[in-house]
Amino acid sequence: MPYTAPVSEFKFTLDHVVDLAQVAATDRFSEATADVCEAILTEAGRLCDDIMAPLNRAGDLTPARLENGVVRTSPGFAEGYKAIAEGGWVGISASPEHGGMGLPFALSVAVNDMMSGACLSLQLCPLLSQGQIEALEAHASDELKALYLPKLISGEWTGTMNLTEPQAGSDVGALSSKAADNGDGTYAITGQKIYISWGDHDVAGNVCHLVLARLPDGKPGTKGLSLFLVPKYIPDDAGNPGVANSLSVVSLEHKMGLHGSPTAVMQYDGATGWLVGDPHGGIAAMFTMMNNARLNVGAQGVGAAEGAYQHALAYALERKQGRTPTGHPTIVDHADVRRMLTAMKADIFAARAIELACAVAIDMETATGSADWSARAAFLTPIAKAFGTDVGIAVSREGVQVHGGMGVIEETGAAQFSRDVRVTAIYEGTNGIQAMDLVARKLMDGGEAAYRLLEEIETQAESARTTLPDLADAVWNTSESLRETTEWLVGQSDANQRFAGAVPYLRAFARVLGGHYHLKAALAEGGSGARSALARVYMGRLLPEYLGLLEEVRVGADDLYALSLEDLGA
Amino acid sequence: MPYTAPVSEFKFTLDHVVDLAQVAATDRFSEATADVCEAILTEAGRLCDDIMAPLNRAGDLTPARLENGVVRTSPGFAEGYKAIAEGGWVGISASPEHGGMGLPFALSVAVNDMMSGACLSLQLCPLLSQGQIEALEAHASDELKALYLPKLISGEWTGTMNLTEPQAGSDVGALSSKAADNGDGTYAITGQKIYISWGDHDVAGNVCHLVLARLPDGKPGTKGLSLFLVPKYIPDDAGNPGVANSLSVVSLEHKMGLHGSPTAVMQYDGATGWLVGDPHGGIAAMFTMMNNARLNVGAQGVGAAEGAYQHALAYALERKQGRTPTGHPTIVDHADVRRMLTAMKADIFAARAIELACAVAIDMETATGSADWSARAAFLTPIAKAFGTDVGIAVSREGVQVHGGMGVIEETGAAQFSRDVRVTAIYEGTNGIQAMDLVARKLMDGGEAAYRLLEEIETQAESARTTLPDLADAVWNTSESLRETTEWLVGQSDANQRFAGAVPYLRAFARVLGGHYHLKAALAEGGSGARSALARVYMGRLLPEYLGLLEEVRVGADDLYALSLEDLGA
Repeated sequence: MPYTAPVSEFKFTLDHVVDLAQVAATDRFSEATADVCEAILTEAGRLCDDIMAPLNRAGDLTPARLENGVVRTSPGFAEGYKAIAEGGWVGISASPEHGGMGLPFALSVAVNDMMSGACLSLQLCPLLSQGQIEALEAHASDELKALYLPKLISGEWTGTMNLTEPQAGSDVGALSSKAADNGDGTYAITGQKIYISWGDHDVAGNVCHLVLARLPDGKPGTKGLSLFLVPKYIPDDAGNPGVANSLSVVSLEHKMGLHGSPTAVMQYDGATGWLVGDPHGGIAAMFTMMNNARLNVGAQGVGAAEGAYQHALAYALERKQGRTPTGHPTIVDHADVRRMLTAMKADIFAARAIELACAVAIDMETATGSADWSARAAFLTPIAKAFGTDVGIAVSREGVQVHGGMGVIEETGAAQFSRDVRVTAIYEGTNGIQAMDLVARKLMDGGEAAYRLLEEIETQAESARTTLPDLADAVWNTSESLRETTEWLVGQSDANQRFAGAVPYLRAFARVLGGHYHLKAALAEGGSGARSALARVYMGRLLPEYLGLLEEVRVGADDLYALSLEDLGA
Repeated sequence: MPYTAPVSEFKFTLDHVVDLAQVAATDRFSEATADVCEAILTEAGRLCDDIMAPLNRAGDLTPARLENGVVRTSPGFAEGYKAIAEGGWVGISASPEHGGMGLPFALSVAVNDMMSGACLSLQLCPLLSQGQIEALEAHASDELKALYLPKLISGEWTGTMNLTEPQAGSDVGALSSKAADNGDGTYAITGQKIYISWGDHDVAGNVCHLVLARLPDGKPGTKGLSLFLVPKYIPDDAGNPGVANSLSVVSLEHKMGLHGSPTAVMQYDGATGWLVGDPHGGIAAMFTMMNNARLNVGAQGVGAAEGAYQHALAYALERKQGRTPTGHPTIVDHADVRRMLTAMKADIFAARAIELACAVAIDMETATGSADWSARAAFLTPIAKAFGTDVGIAVSREGVQVHGGMGVIEETGAAQFSRDVRVTAIYEGTNGIQAMDLVARKLMDGGEAAYRLLEEIETQAESARTTLPDLADAVWNTSESLRETTEWLVGQSDANQRFAGAVPYLRAFARVLGGHYHLKAALAEGGSGARSALARVYMGRLLPEYLGLLEEVRVGADDLYALSLEDLGA
């Protein structure tokens, strides 16, 4: 499965669309010069192309398996992981104090995106460690930090997230895992957790679980949850993996895709854990890692879309069928194939720009502490997650279509992209949950963060009216409609009226943002050339979707409940 | 995997939406009384629920396999097929002269739809026989008819379609299989065919292949192709399977889904075949079966969507998570889950109504020979195929989403619907090919068939303005926009300008038709009740998609070629 990490695409988007330079201009990230960024992207790209992409198919064909309580990963995955760890790629944005590179999160997200296109199931492993590193950096005691962070950042050990239980998925507050104080600074953790990605494996020396559980005096709901670090092997005095903890892998799931990523049911039987953050402060600590993890999952969707696109393009460039209108000998020039490919490419650009803009906002928040940047990051995160993964699903679906009959034959690899990426719209909070977060929590400021973004979109569109009138007008008009719909949403006192239009609103916002970034790219190349041509495809074929979406938002919720359960077929 | 064939839904749609009564009012189909139709649907529904649905998962888990040149099908499939054959379900619309029921094609399509929801990979087997029966009825010699039709109609033997070769997919005229006259009324067929669904199996006594090949004096391209009937076992004088023909199964494909349906690479080494139709008339004969097969594939998409919907609804009715706005204890009442489920149901109704309206047009063409009905059937066929299968893919995708994390766990069955239905947008002519057929061949009459349909839509909308003003206005407005876009398309002399907007045009037409049939259903129940409520969901949430689609159609083709192959990433 050939794959070339789109290094120059990241470089262009970071430099000319999301303005990474402003991040490098801060004291905190002054080392992130253009040269450093280019070197990072190039080096990571090489790892993707040479080491990770060749593992992708093996991960699908030979899934991770559970043998005598131990998980054996897919052929080559251990070596692949080692290469990621040794390259320092786990800790791109981790603190230098414990061995990280201390570079902007935007670079880390960019690398995750490109790795996802190469081998999504392997990439998920270091991604989970990154979330754990963030949570520990923000909330753990100095002792825990000193012991765990160097191992996690170097990749010697890996991390997992343990939230979900059979009865507690989106409703995490319903979980029933318990924690008891051992009186010696440790806690005994008991319960069952499901969907634990990379919950066990043989690619690194220890597996560190961050587990949400309830202390005896924890209230019901999310506010009574605490977060614990529960290692597979309890570190000995020298900090090496020691005795086995009281935890086990009950089973691995048989999934539609991501076969190379072991998804475990974990059982904790009074396992020894250490408190991370305050007692009953687990959900806040979890959200520290979850927000950035959500953005990174969005990047997984975009990366998978890139892989699917490259795959489909390669096929279209090679497959001969019928006479094309241009006389070119392969199907790439048939109008409908062209339509699919250009729309795929335009969508990937849009989703990636949103993803990197969100990452830059997070970096600016980190560097400046600005509330505006914080609100911007918070607003963009659910959009980047849901839109990025929806694009991953849609583009990989279209990638199958470009292949015709070969698309459903597994040897081709097109179907694998489609199967692998499917879960990204579900894990780390389903895309429905993301949309509800957007229209509820992220509009609680009366829409301020949304209006500031729309202001920026309209200002650019205004100023582009002389250079690129067609593109600028398209963006300006959609932005106006989006503003009106935002006002309507903000005015709804019944949350359910907002929830009923949450998904189409999120998508409409993403569509308009995509137009904004396409316009920026077109302006950056001076208004003519490939960027402008791609922007034109976006404006003509993808942006207009906002029309139907905004109509749906304004419907409200009443129509949904006009049907009884019997009417639905119950 | 529980499944209940939606018998009353078919009954309602046939009676009140697509007016099956007009078919029963013809001499040709006078036996298709309301009672007969109800009995057929009820009986077929029982087979679906009791026999076919329980096989669905086994087909996925234990794919058909090739052993020593012979295909062994999934556990239970032979018994399941036998039940289909013994029920007479292969020959619902086949001629009574050879053992068929002689009932309207609309009933056959309805039964195929409900069977597809139960077990798509098994249903594909009799579906292929039906296509072959039609081709033989229309084009075969009396001798061939007398020998093969009774066996195919009774299900004793099965049929396949052999068009595709590695270098000849959508471009069927590029095929290289050869036929040589043996001088004794038979032909020697040589070549390799791929993607042959149910190309071999152990569920019936013989496999009859309809093979497209070129006679020595056949011109290049489609006009030089002839059609041959090539049985696996050559019938002996008593009409029983005799000596093995010179053909073999080279391999079975490993597919994303439809694991229970063996997809063979077939090798013909001078195999004995009989000419069906005229020499060099193969493509016309093939289209006889292909048009109806296309509609039936659309019905496969709708059936799979029904299965996925029922599955998702059952999960939503049972899964508790968080507090719902209505106080109902399960997720079915969360606004976003409701939105997904109601939209799925509304889309299934729309796609099914289009499917059955197309089938009724075919029946009216058969019964009356009317050119208008013929044009109507021809116009609706690509829409029914592409929209039905797109709905199958979209609804099964949403079905996974309703399941949350469970959606990607294979045990749940939700993912299987999604994987199984994927190929329906590709086989029998990709949905892109369907759309090109619509905007090229089906608009060659200057748009007459399209305008007649729009006329009908607008007439109903006009007359509904007093009873259901909101729904009627929505349909009327969209229909007007569609008329303008149709005029624009018809006015494009460069076919490529039409092709570039073919897929969005087809989809926009389907959206408007769906609105038309939803309005008809709402009117049939008197303008208030569950049908009207569902229509309102459709008008508010699904129909508005036409806005963006029609904008895309009007873009034309130039933007697609403004990007060079290098710009695309070549």
